[in-house]
Amino acid sequence: YGKNTIKFLRLHREGKKHFVKEVEVCTHLRLTSPQEYLEGNNSLVIPTDTIKNIVLVLAKKNGIPSLEQFAIDICNHFMTTFCQVVYVKTYVQEVPWQRLHENGVPHIHSFICVPDGIRFCEAEQCRNGPLVVFAGIKDLKLMKTTQSGFEGFYKNEHTTLPERHDRILCGELFCKWSYGECKDFDFNCTWYMNKIRECILEAFSGPPDCGEYSPSYQKTVNCIQMLVLSKVSQVQVIEVVLNNTFYNVLDMKNLGLTNDKEVLIPVEAPYGSCACTLGRKKFFEA
Amino acid sequence: YGKNTIKFLRLHREGKKHFVKEVEVCTHLRLTSPQEYLEGNNSLVIPTDTIKNIVLVLAKKNGIPSLEQFAIDICNHFMTTFCQVVYVKTYVQEVPWQRLHENGVPHIHSFICVPDGIRFCEAEQCRNGPLVVFAGIKDLKLMKTTQSGFEGFYKNEHTTLPERHDRILCGELFCKWSYGECKDFDFNCTWYMNKIRECILEAFSGPPDCGEYSPSYQKTVNCIQMLVLSKVSQVQVIEVVLNNTFYNVLDMKNLGLTNDKEVLIPVEAPYGSCACTLGRKKFFEA
Amino acid sequence: YGKNTIKFLRLHREGKKHFVKEVEVCTHLRLTSPQEYLEGNNSLVIPTDTIKNIVLVLAKKNGIPSLEQFAIDICNHFMTTFCQVVYVKTYVQEVPWQRLHENGVPHIHSFICVPDGIRFCEAEQCRNGPLVVFAGIKDLKLMKTTQSGFEGFYKNEHTTLPERHDRILCGELFCKWSYGECKDFDFNCTWYMNKIRECILEAFSGPPDCGEYSPSYQKTVNCIQMLVLSKVSQVQVIEVVLNNTFYNVLDMKNLGLTNDKEVLIPVEAPYGSCACTLGRKKFFEA
Amino acid sequence: YGKNTIKFLRLHREGKKHFVKEVEVCTHLRLTSPQEYLEGNNSLVIPTDTIKNIVLVLAKKNGIPSLEQFAIDICNHFMTTFCQVVYVKTYVQEVPWQRLHENGVPHIHSFICVPDGIRFCEAEQCRNGPLVVFAGIKDLKLMKTTQSGFEGFYKNEHTTLPERHDRILCGELFCKWSYGECKDFDFNCTWYMNKIRECILEAFSGPPDCGEYSPSYQKTVNCIQMLVLSKVSQVQVIEVVLNNTFYNVLDMKNLGLTNDKEVLIPVEAPYGSCACTLGRKKFFEA
Repeated sequence: YGKNTIKFLRLHREGKKHFVKEVEVCTHLRLTSPQEYLEGNNSLVIPTDTIKNIVLVLAKKNGIPSLEQFAIDICNHFMTTFCQVVYVKTYVQEVPWQRLHENGVPHIHSFICVPDGIRFCEAEQCRNGPLVVFAGIKDLKLMKTTQSGFEGFYKNEHTTLPERHDRILCGELFCKWSYGECKDFDFNCTWYMNKIRECILEAFSGPPDCGEYSPSYQKTVNCIQMLVLSKVSQVQVIEVVLNNTFYNVLDMKNLGLTNDKEVLIPVEAPYGSCACTLGRKKFFEA
Repeated sequence: YGKNTIKFLRLHREGKKHFVKEVEVCTHLRLTSPQEYLEGNNSLVIPTDTIKNIVLVLAKKNGIPSLEQFAIDICNHFMTTFCQVVYVKTYVQEVPWQRLHENGVPHIHSFICVPDGIRFCEAEQCRNGPLVVFAGIKDLKLMKTTQSGFEGFYKNEHTTLPERHDRILCGELFCKWSYGECKDFDFNCTWYMNKIRECILEAFSGPPDCGEYSPSYQKTVNCIQMLVLSKVSQVQVIEVVLNNTFYNVLDMKNLGLTNDKEVLIPVEAPYGSCACTLGRKKFFEA
Repeated sequence: YGKNTIKFLRLHREGKKHFVKEVEVCTHLRLTSPQEYLEGNNSLVIPTDTIKNIVLVLAKKNGIPSLEQFAIDICNHFMTTFCQVVYVKTYVQEVPWQRLHENGVPHIHSFICVPDGIRFCEAEQCRNGPLVVFAGIKDLKLMKTTQSGFEGFYKNEHTTLPERHDRILCGELFCKWSYGECKDFDFNCTWYMNKIRECILEAFSGPPDCGEYSPSYQKTVNCIQMLVLSKVSQVQVIEVVLNNTFYNVLDMKNLGLTNDKEVLIPVEAPYGSCACTLGRKKFFEA
Repeated sequence: YGKNTIKFLRLHREGKKHFVKEVEVCTHLRLTSPQEYLEGNNSLVIPTDTIKNIVLVLAKKNGIPSLEQFAIDICNHFMTTFCQVVYVKTYVQEVPWQRLHENGVPHIHSFICVPDGIRFCEAEQCRNGPLVVFAGIKDLKLMKTTQSGFEGFYKNEHTTLPERHDRILCGELFCKWSYGECKDFDFNCTWYMNKIRECILEAFSGPPDCGEYSPSYQKTVNCIQMLVLSKVSQVQVIEVVLNNTFYNVLDMKNLGLTNDKEVLIPVEAPYGSCACTLGRKKFFEA
């Protein structure tokens, strides 16, 4: 049980310059005994209202140095404070506020919401187990208008899809990776210095002057994983899900026109999805 | 990988009387080899477009006798037709069309959408493994305006919640159960004859003339599970998630009024959540 | 300016039997002077927080005998209390809680949310003008699987739609009507005794044993309006909007099958829309 | 009646460089006669399917030089082609694809969706009337963390809001303006050269080094209107709606802490809203 979507803004001031971090937190616990389920005995139950209070108190006291550190602080607090807690998981997601700029000059206290991919993280711990930290980005919508095809696939009597060597590739990316053992870790540094987001965009799109051919959604997913693993040594395992929107080249023959991939109709349902989890040595696919 | 939200309506006619079943299907596969991820070799890949075609062809040929049977048909088709498939999972969800009635007389071809709980099911199979079937109901919003409290919980310096013996209990239920080995099973019969939905409503609300006191969300979740397990022998394990909306009794003292639980404000975020999975012998809690 | 989505539950008890009315209220005002816009002078501005308080106080004091009466009470309060208000409009929408029944017996304090059409109303008044009251129902999704066609329409070189005399008619209805002068009006009585909702369903679907042929969405809209105007004398003007979902009969020839309107694909975007406002003597169309 | 959410992507290529414009179009018509409503006579009715075809054909033939020009083209087509049309309105909204950059280098065919404000426009025409063009931006979420207050407002017994001279101002902006007579107008030039979006951001936030005090949401709305009208001569009338999210400074006294505006809780419902329409000479407020 737990509390979901605890939303708050943490405002930090350095002189007249303001910094904001607005987040949404979900914290879930498992207790030693199920007696509240079986017997209605609440004596060990930490109310979800108290969970909320603790999240807010930690935000007030420690600030949010990074999403990951904040999630770790919350897990640590529950593990060290409550002996009846045997498992804790905390998810933190960021509202994508960006500082406004006027003619290149950053504004000291004004911000704009730019949801081009949402950063999130997750920390979880079993009592006597290691603290595991994940980070990720979701709701990242990308498109490339060429250098994508899908050919040589398996065919039988139910196959109606034609082979294509030049199609639009468009989809929403979900990427989540684990950092393995993470003591004394500067998470923001890892994020920004290693340019994980840039890495994902680069693997998706290829070189700016020519792109890179993608033979399938699956291969694009794998490229993203390989590039992140190769460039960011702290990443142990990376899961990528690509939910793709198919763009159908409209047949305009009955309207007396030849449509040379100029007008395309997005098909939102049904949509294809491919997911893969790739680690440093082992390999899973789902 | 797979295809999500394959939406279609299956219309069945008996003379002038029409029957509709509108569903949303998601089917996911795992293949023997990850070569399409690693090498961009698509030769074993069944396009998601073909997956969609197969789902529609099966609906046309077999109809949808029950959501569960349809999900099983899909899994069987993939397992028996494609030797490169090592795992298949199919989720089916129903659009809640109900036949219209005029002065108690059922209409032969008119329907109304009544989303008071959505029926769904899931079937999954690993090659050489058993076919596992789940069924469930989600998005079921219930409220009881008394006979609910929360007392005797664990307290420390972060506790601000007062004890309450008379509060509103309101939440959205998600229930999912497995049917175990299910050969020659009449799923609709199990659903309707055993009145699973009625069972859930009854366990939530108690007797119509007085209700039954709930000492916590957790206990209500457990009551639902116990009643379903006791009344429906085919159910092996049942998972229930209750996402609750807190109703805050508005303090109107500064407006010169005494609010005797007459005006309450729903608090949609954050919300508490409790989940429990209960089987016939074993027991898990999360 | 004003306050939107003021959500609350009004609980009413008669002995052990409970009655609930959960609503969402929006109240907007216009003031005599725009000085707060031009000069930043707030001296006449009633804070939206105060608007919220007033709505809640009226709910506490008067209860919600009907949505319409509650909206009227709010408008009256603002007009009589604040001389700087020159216009007030209030919209009230109901959360569709229904009393639970167990084997036909109504439960004294348990409810289920059944969103098969949402009741709403609106009251507005200019200073020195009449109080105008509207009521309506929205989000009402209906389908008839035959007795609908579309033929004889205007054609030119951009027409690709075939004529059809047997198609599915499915859509979401929005109906809103005005009650004209409404002193000493029992709104709930008008609603329930005149069976306005039943009227709409009947006009959409026709007789239960055979239905009634609809030559277009437009004609169905008109039938609904005519029936409501003829059966409910208090209704002066009625607006109906029908947003229709097209169901495409899937061509399965390339899959070797003949699809006799058995498998249909809902096309959610783009969707057609038709709207018409019909009064007792005059006539508008949009 | 008409067709809503006609979604498509218009792809334009210059050598290897690709340009995308993905839009959502709604086109509504009113005909000379209501005979299809009253008599079910469809002979003048242009099917919504034909409306869709025309929109797509115009996109194919003319491209989308600007949203506004495209909306004008559609209106002109209906007015000149169909004498039974007495009124036409077209709304066009853009999917916010932006070209990807790698280390500052623009990518020739890769794009990212950045929904930080959505551009839209509307054109409407009555037969024998002028063509009126509107443009706008919506879903623009902005925040300033200081330089905002609300004091000196009207108070009575229902007022519980304290006066504040330092609060967070956060809201979602909707701005829509008309261009008056617009022959031989370069709409993109007007948009980009006049920096309308930058204008709105600047009026909201004030100078980057200090900001500018806002005494109310209303005054901020007015500032935006005044700045746009003063800087963009082509704008005749501008409507601005600001739906604000209140950030509540959490009282942490009962948790033993002093919260100096460090932790704030966003209150999403109810929300305040203020709207104003400002023209060059005349003035309305709603």
